[in-house]
Amino acid sequence: MRIAELSRRTGMPMPTIKYYLREGLAHPGERLSVNQTSYDETHVRRLTLVRALIEVGGLSIAAAREVLRSLDSREALFTVLATMQNHLVTPVEQSAETVADKARDRVRTLVAGRGWHVDLDSPPATVLVDALATLDRLGHHDYATILDTLADAGQRVAEAEVGAVVGREDQDVVEAAVVGTALGGVVLNSLRLLAHQHASATAFGA
Amino acid sequence: MRIAELSRRTGMPMPTIKYYLREGLAHPGERLSVNQTSYDETHVRRLTLVRALIEVGGLSIAAAREVLRSLDSREALFTVLATMQNHLVTPVEQSAETVADKARDRVRTLVAGRGWHVDLDSPPATVLVDALATLDRLGHHDYATILDTLADAGQRVAEAEVGAVVGREDQDVVEAAVVGTALGGVVLNSLRLLAHQHASATAFGA
Repeated sequence: MRIAELSRRTGMPMPTIKYYLREGLAHPGERLSVNQTSYDETHVRRLTLVRALIEVGGLSIAAAREVLRSLDSREALFTVLATMQNHLVTPVEQSAETVADKARDRVRTLVAGRGWHVDLDSPPATVLVDALATLDRLGHHDYATILDTLADAGQRVAEAEVGAVVGREDQDVVEAAVVGTALGGVVLNSLRLLAHQHASATAFGA
Repeated sequence: MRIAELSRRTGMPMPTIKYYLREGLAHPGERLSVNQTSYDETHVRRLTLVRALIEVGGLSIAAAREVLRSLDSREALFTVLATMQNHLVTPVEQSAETVADKARDRVRTLVAGRGWHVDLDSPPATVLVDALATLDRLGHHDYATILDTLADAGQRVAEAEVGAVVGREDQDVVEAAVVGTALGGVVLNSLRLLAHQHASATAFGA
């Protein structure tokens, strides 16, 4: 099919498709002549995956490239999952301020208390420290009272997500793990905000 | 203080501060001369809040402006919360495709089953529909098996977040609700990804 048809099939604008192709996120089409390239079903599927990661999951181009490379080189599920875990948030530079040190201690204590074996220098840990330090800087120390509820919720979701794919190593499941992990944050946050609507309507009797 | 000191105190680069001031997200400083403006502690605090919403919470400039407007005009907690709920995700255009219709039905059923009173045209609902439709387009129908776990987790977090501020209407609490709601998604997702590290390390015996 021509690029116009590929655009219709994927629902993606032609300039976006050209951009992703130029960035090497999808394989080139077959060059038929100087100004004619042919695409097939594999492009429809691949671009849908690229859109899922970038436009729905919110990954940067660089993060999507890294994740797709891990998927394309058929790395083991564990390795692909580790790549996902570290590319779904943009790491934050560790601050040397006292408030950041305190937040780091808080994260260390929380993680140890739950028996989690995690990398405290990994992107999700630095982002968490930055968020908690920000709350502290603004004087919202009360946040500590709900942190455990959030950790419980995060743990349940992670266990369900990992549990759904573990022990199955076919390529379909590896892709499902990538997409599920990328979109899981979006799905979870949307559900949280919908539940927020309901909880505040209930609380305020609206 | 001069802008250089304001930059040191907030840890924000001067061009970023100037940009936020130009965008009207913080109040102007006191103009002392043509090329000298003086800022005070209220600017330190306000810029910390702006950074929390945009750089930590991931809000767009437009969304942050709307949220800050709601906060500055001292709207009631319920109204401010509603603004937050609808500005934390970028709404997605509703697709007329069958796969999107099915996803919409699924969201309607999920919400009804939980007795949530929510707006199915609100941004979090459109984002959720888009994410579920994307998973379907890629053939990852298995995702349905963990959706309830995510809805449970989202509900617990939302109830804790709303519960922490409801019944308290002072301006500090309204700001705490804004910041907590903006950063809650980031904190929750970071915790989920840390728990993911632990769950996959455990599952794969690494």
